[in-house]
Amino acid sequence: MPTNYEKLHALSKQISLMNAIHFLLDWDQETYMPKEAIELRSQQTEIMASLVHKQRTSKAFIKALSSLIDLNTGEVADSNLSMPQMAALREWRRDHLHNIKLPNSFVKQFAKTTSAACHVWQTAKEHNDFKAFAPYLDKVVSLNRKKADLLGFTDHPYDALLDLYEPEMKTSFLTPLFSQLKLSLTQLIKEISVKPAFPDEFLYRHCPRHKQLDFAHKILHKMGFHSSTSRLDTSAHPFCTGLQPNDTRMTTRIHPENIMSNIGAVLHEGGHGLYNMNLPMQHYGSPLGEQVSLGIDESQSRFWETLIGQSKPLWRYFFPLLQAELPEQFGNVSLDDFYHAINIVKPGFIRIDADEVTYNLHIIIRFEIEKGLIEGSLKVKELPDIWNSKMREYLGISPEFDGQGCLQDIHWSLGAIGYFPTYTLGNLYAVQFFEAFQKAHPKWEEQVAHGSLDFIRDWLKENIHQYGRQFTPPELCQRVTGKALSQDPYVNYLTKKYRELYR
Amino acid sequence: MPTNYEKLHALSKQISLMNAIHFLLDWDQETYMPKEAIELRSQQTEIMASLVHKQRTSKAFIKALSSLIDLNTGEVADSNLSMPQMAALREWRRDHLHNIKLPNSFVKQFAKTTSAACHVWQTAKEHNDFKAFAPYLDKVVSLNRKKADLLGFTDHPYDALLDLYEPEMKTSFLTPLFSQLKLSLTQLIKEISVKPAFPDEFLYRHCPRHKQLDFAHKILHKMGFHSSTSRLDTSAHPFCTGLQPNDTRMTTRIHPENIMSNIGAVLHEGGHGLYNMNLPMQHYGSPLGEQVSLGIDESQSRFWETLIGQSKPLWRYFFPLLQAELPEQFGNVSLDDFYHAINIVKPGFIRIDADEVTYNLHIIIRFEIEKGLIEGSLKVKELPDIWNSKMREYLGISPEFDGQGCLQDIHWSLGAIGYFPTYTLGNLYAVQFFEAFQKAHPKWEEQVAHGSLDFIRDWLKENIHQYGRQFTPPELCQRVTGKALSQDPYVNYLTKKYRELYR
Repeated sequence: MPTNYEKLHALSKQISLMNAIHFLLDWDQETYMPKEAIELRSQQTEIMASLVHKQRTSKAFIKALSSLIDLNTGEVADSNLSMPQMAALREWRRDHLHNIKLPNSFVKQFAKTTSAACHVWQTAKEHNDFKAFAPYLDKVVSLNRKKADLLGFTDHPYDALLDLYEPEMKTSFLTPLFSQLKLSLTQLIKEISVKPAFPDEFLYRHCPRHKQLDFAHKILHKMGFHSSTSRLDTSAHPFCTGLQPNDTRMTTRIHPENIMSNIGAVLHEGGHGLYNMNLPMQHYGSPLGEQVSLGIDESQSRFWETLIGQSKPLWRYFFPLLQAELPEQFGNVSLDDFYHAINIVKPGFIRIDADEVTYNLHIIIRFEIEKGLIEGSLKVKELPDIWNSKMREYLGISPEFDGQGCLQDIHWSLGAIGYFPTYTLGNLYAVQFFEAFQKAHPKWEEQVAHGSLDFIRDWLKENIHQYGRQFTPPELCQRVTGKALSQDPYVNYLTKKYRELYR
Repeated sequence: MPTNYEKLHALSKQISLMNAIHFLLDWDQETYMPKEAIELRSQQTEIMASLVHKQRTSKAFIKALSSLIDLNTGEVADSNLSMPQMAALREWRRDHLHNIKLPNSFVKQFAKTTSAACHVWQTAKEHNDFKAFAPYLDKVVSLNRKKADLLGFTDHPYDALLDLYEPEMKTSFLTPLFSQLKLSLTQLIKEISVKPAFPDEFLYRHCPRHKQLDFAHKILHKMGFHSSTSRLDTSAHPFCTGLQPNDTRMTTRIHPENIMSNIGAVLHEGGHGLYNMNLPMQHYGSPLGEQVSLGIDESQSRFWETLIGQSKPLWRYFFPLLQAELPEQFGNVSLDDFYHAINIVKPGFIRIDADEVTYNLHIIIRFEIEKGLIEGSLKVKELPDIWNSKMREYLGISPEFDGQGCLQDIHWSLGAIGYFPTYTLGNLYAVQFFEAFQKAHPKWEEQVAHGSLDFIRDWLKENIHQYGRQFTPPELCQRVTGKALSQDPYVNYLTKKYRELYR
């Protein structure tokens, strides 16, 4: 006879399998689906989303869950459960409370509004027409405020939204963290801005598509991916979707005149991919088989993209291979010049093109604006002015049009408010984990320079991936690094690295 | 307010959309899915199949259907419906009766048995071990006899099985048709067998993968496919799956040493693909937006693969292109030699490798055996002997082991009995349609030789595709060709073509 826990896990696994079908529909849409199939495909996506929601809020599921945990108090009834199982119940309950607090009518209205907003945003961005988008963003903000009310909060309405992406994160924690970070970063940027720029034209030499893809596969292979459990395809925007631990699907984009765009994407999505690949299969379909949070997930991608991917040791190994593959493009470039070029710091308008140092200021601008919109201290119509003045203040540059300013990101049109901070949290977690990793592997630079990456993957699996959602993000951070999340490791890392680079 | 018909169509469309998700899971499994994902993928396929079955037998659907048609008598209540709508109701009811006659317990038992049988068949085929497969086939046959009983029949139990694949087809029609055909074919093969063979070694020269794929795309482009609504990939066994008219997915296989294997597959799957592409979009999700039957669907693939694809006019246009693309392989080959080589008649053991003349004898053997098994006049253990003696009698050759004999096909292990005849019906329909097409386009050979294929696609759309399931197979045949299906056009076509080829 299966235990109550096993029964709940079995039900939950059915839902995860259905949700993964939804992911496959999305993956297919972005990679191989013929364009004109989009109308019926959207209907299929809706069907799957609604089936999943129905299952998650079904009587059978709630009954199975509440046989093990008191849904009101969170008290676990069965004392024979293991610690991980009790943690799983805590997370199942967390999800459940999110799922039932938003009534169907609200979810539908939200989906309808954001679908229209996303549509309008695309044209508005193209035509730099913020006025056209403003009324839609207004509705999105109102709905998010309503969402916060429905979800409930004790301190700040933004907490309710944050919690969806980064469990247990609070506005009162983020606000001082981000304003301290802002100070440190603007200071460092000022120091760098007076230094001469590095040459980097060689990064924009033509590299054929198939050579770029070959190199991408080489990197993924070294990271520990196998074709029997993962794949790499191309899409307009790189992404990683984990259909299950044995089915990790990553994509990259190939710009023949910008090979680092591909390499950065592969390392980034590869970081997400390893997290998915290393989740424990026996817990698939339960919180113990899922990523902890968006912030922790992003820490894994940034760990590989920046801390390893933009490090000298990695390129000690890979740069000679790149030179051998593309002698015309890189034959006359020194490793040192290459390393400098891929680490150029230069304030720019576009978040997704930003370097390690300036990136977080882009996020902090968005956080400050989101917070203002949700608490009502900022109006949507003020957005372009606020955006541009913050860009001037933090990064010293002024967007000339809203397409390179407050219209650049899709997130708000999709209704995702509270999401952006997880990007910076990811960066901070990544470096704090990196410090712990360096302590465990003091000779990591030598090992990486010899082309060994397995021990990094193993350390991440051992310390982070294998636990799924057993620990909350703050617990995990404490466990792995011995302290709470702070800006210090990040700022120390940047200062040391970039003072050395820019002397 | 939507009419009752529109309500039924909307419900039915939801089911079709879900079923198409099931098709996508299968397509992905055969093309891009990492191998080790198979276990959870099978569970996902099962989930979708069960969801679709639930919807099809749901109270809501049955209520919507029975508001328009009497499910017992088939009488249509609403006199305001158009002829096509009344036909759609007839087909919805036909499907419904199939769906409800098989109880869930039976469907599950059938799935379990065939899943095990399929597994055993694979090893049995590899080791030529019919004895290992026999007990499983025995169960499959028993379940199919039970299935026939559950579905019901008036004349012959095999009718009930046939009807699932080829509505309205009867054993009493097939038996004389096939035995007449057998006589004509064995006679023609005897005539050919005394003639000298054509040279064909050039068909097996090495042709690189990418060149073969380029050529495949050229053919599909000429047939009328666009990348915005269709795609071609590769898989172990070529297939075509129609996710919807705007999403036709075909696959081919590339053997570098056998380019005709690819070209034949592309023309064949392209024929299926055009049928899917030309189904009326406004009727998607209703029987008016579906293929009539497996036989008619196969007639479309064989129309392109053999009647057009192995014709001289097509190669008048394509052979020079092939020579230009692959000058080393085909530069010194004449069109005439090429045309002869792709039409060689030679009895062989393997059905899927068979030529136009011998192919149907492979099917007739399977039909005679299936009929015997279902009516009980033949026992599973007698199968290898019966198979081999029929091969000797009809094709003059004896399989040396069961892997090239009665174990060669997967169909029986999957539980599909009554399916094989649709292959030969497809061939017969194809030629009978082809006769009508030739009357409408007496100069087709000239047009095709100039590289025009659009008028063929248009004729097929106009006469067959656009109607979906409005007409039953016999009605459609009568309508398009002015007569009932017979062997005569087929035999006349073969006799004329091959007497000319073999003089």
